[in-house]
Amino acid sequence: MSGTGRIRPVILSGGTGTRLWPLSRLGRPKQLIAIAGDETMLQATASRVADETLFAPPIVVAGEADAEAIEAQLAEVGMEAEALILEPAGRGTAPAIALAALAGGEDEVMLIMPSDHVIAEPAAFRSAVEAALPRAEEGWLVTFGISPERPETGYGYIRRGPALGAGAWRVSAFVEKPDAATAERYLAEGGYDWNAGLFLLRADAYLAALERYAPAVLAAAQGAAAGQRREGRRVLPDEAAFAAAPSVSIDVAVMEKADKVAVVPVEMGWSDVGSWEALHALGPADADGNVLTGDVVAPGSRGCLVRSDGPVVVAMGCEDMVVVATERAVLIVPRGQSQRVKEAIDALEARRRKD
Amino acid sequence: MSGTGRIRPVILSGGTGTRLWPLSRLGRPKQLIAIAGDETMLQATASRVADETLFAPPIVVAGEADAEAIEAQLAEVGMEAEALILEPAGRGTAPAIALAALAGGEDEVMLIMPSDHVIAEPAAFRSAVEAALPRAEEGWLVTFGISPERPETGYGYIRRGPALGAGAWRVSAFVEKPDAATAERYLAEGGYDWNAGLFLLRADAYLAALERYAPAVLAAAQGAAAGQRREGRRVLPDEAAFAAAPSVSIDVAVMEKADKVAVVPVEMGWSDVGSWEALHALGPADADGNVLTGDVVAPGSRGCLVRSDGPVVVAMGCEDMVVVATERAVLIVPRGQSQRVKEAIDALEARRRKD
Repeated sequence: MSGTGRIRPVILSGGTGTRLWPLSRLGRPKQLIAIAGDETMLQATASRVADETLFAPPIVVAGEADAEAIEAQLAEVGMEAEALILEPAGRGTAPAIALAALAGGEDEVMLIMPSDHVIAEPAAFRSAVEAALPRAEEGWLVTFGISPERPETGYGYIRRGPALGAGAWRVSAFVEKPDAATAERYLAEGGYDWNAGLFLLRADAYLAALERYAPAVLAAAQGAAAGQRREGRRVLPDEAAFAAAPSVSIDVAVMEKADKVAVVPVEMGWSDVGSWEALHALGPADADGNVLTGDVVAPGSRGCLVRSDGPVVVAMGCEDMVVVATERAVLIVPRGQSQRVKEAIDALEARRRKD
Repeated sequence: MSGTGRIRPVILSGGTGTRLWPLSRLGRPKQLIAIAGDETMLQATASRVADETLFAPPIVVAGEADAEAIEAQLAEVGMEAEALILEPAGRGTAPAIALAALAGGEDEVMLIMPSDHVIAEPAAFRSAVEAALPRAEEGWLVTFGISPERPETGYGYIRRGPALGAGAWRVSAFVEKPDAATAERYLAEGGYDWNAGLFLLRADAYLAALERYAPAVLAAAQGAAAGQRREGRRVLPDEAAFAAAPSVSIDVAVMEKADKVAVVPVEMGWSDVGSWEALHALGPADADGNVLTGDVVAPGSRGCLVRSDGPVVVAMGCEDMVVVATERAVLIVPRGQSQRVKEAIDALEARRRKD
């Protein structure tokens, strides 16, 4: 292990964020849209690792369709990817991270980051990364655990085992998304953190774990890397070889099975912006509790999220509603029910097929 | 008086329907948009007088910008205007009707109809017209009064005087839009009808009344007609002469002052579609009380009007809301508050000026 090299950020930008309908109809995944703030979430993610004293240039793993947008957005914040790996198809995080591990130095420490999360306190994030670095350099697979603020049933949890010191714990278990009562119990008992999909791990340690616990993922990634083409910073893995990779997350493939797995809990204003409610919670809210974005007015409204990426929106006298408009689609739903929007979209699609 | 000629329909299509924001942003007045049903309200208005045994071809008075749309929409329902009088500027109904009176035969009976009203029972309307015809032929200025269904404060009222027989009454007074208590009293007392702006009157009787009560309107209309140009069925009055006309309604100019004014009350499912609430009341509503128009779904919603003239709209779990969407603008407001939308639009405009 080196201990001297900089950390290699690996930004995963393969997701499509379908939960945030109707923005998902804009033809871009949510990380490439300015959803929270003026920057896109990809830009905010990259900016978090811009300090060249600690971080090497990032490796970005994404779908081919987004290559130009990603390059342009990174350039806007004065950054360039070391490599932009364009997955021929989405196969989950385990194969994507394997491609990144094979693209960098084998003893590099990789900081794996989804590109569609918000971290309101980047200094806290950086401190956690620095705290985790010695463990990663020792070969631990480190995951960052988000201290839970509520009995959330939408995330998996990490149960802490024995303390390793310096803010790290050995992981006792990764546990599935709980039901409401179980989530309440986790919160009351303590010692549980949300699994946010943020990892710090040495490339060779990850590849060794893949070899042991998910050899088909490793073999497919190696084949895809061996047959890859390069176009400038773009890397195009071999399509046929990559297609052989099982579609699997790093959690299932490796983290839940490996032995030296640590968790570093962190409070950093984290959100996966997985729902419109989450975006409302991020704010900033006006005096009436409204979070307003775009060409919108909300006179007499309270507790609303009103957002437009196109048309003028007048949301008048509304209470605790989510209103999101684009030129092509509009969503109106009470706050707390936006997770049910998928039902409505399914109903719409069914009617279209009938028509 | 003739007694033998057919009735000349006069369709007034000069209004802009600004109350129905955001449809008013589509660049067409509301009568030229299919708001209630599959036909536009102009088409529905013309279709009501399509029976050639009773009605001559209509004269349409409109703004220049709408000429092509009006011709195309009439053609779609198999009709053509006798004349399409294009006002150089909107000066209210009194000058507009004067232009129509000067364009037709002087002893013709004119049926004056706004183009942006809904009449759910056209047979009742026709019966009322037939009942009123003898009075009009005798030189009475006849107005049709809508039997009030509720203590509406948004309309003027007509107080009935002595009965003239055959369903007609001499008008005792035109009264202003009442406050809520007065409207309740009108409803309780009876003998009051809503003033809907529908009239049956002989052209020469109207012109004579103008000469007596509003000579400036008559003079301007005569000057505009004398200097007019014709382009096929289109009539373009002289702009400078018409600009001299006072801007005034037929009610104020003539009906409130003239002596031989009669009212024929009628129940015919009338609505001026002056608000989104009115459109909701027109229906048709589904089992949950929702009136849905366009590419919309409203699962779990009740009592809502949801309408799209462009984007897909998902209005989920909403109660008693008005939702109207175009590609350029979206309105969300509780039912019963849509009359306040003007405040919101004013706020929006003010902010734009500030930006």
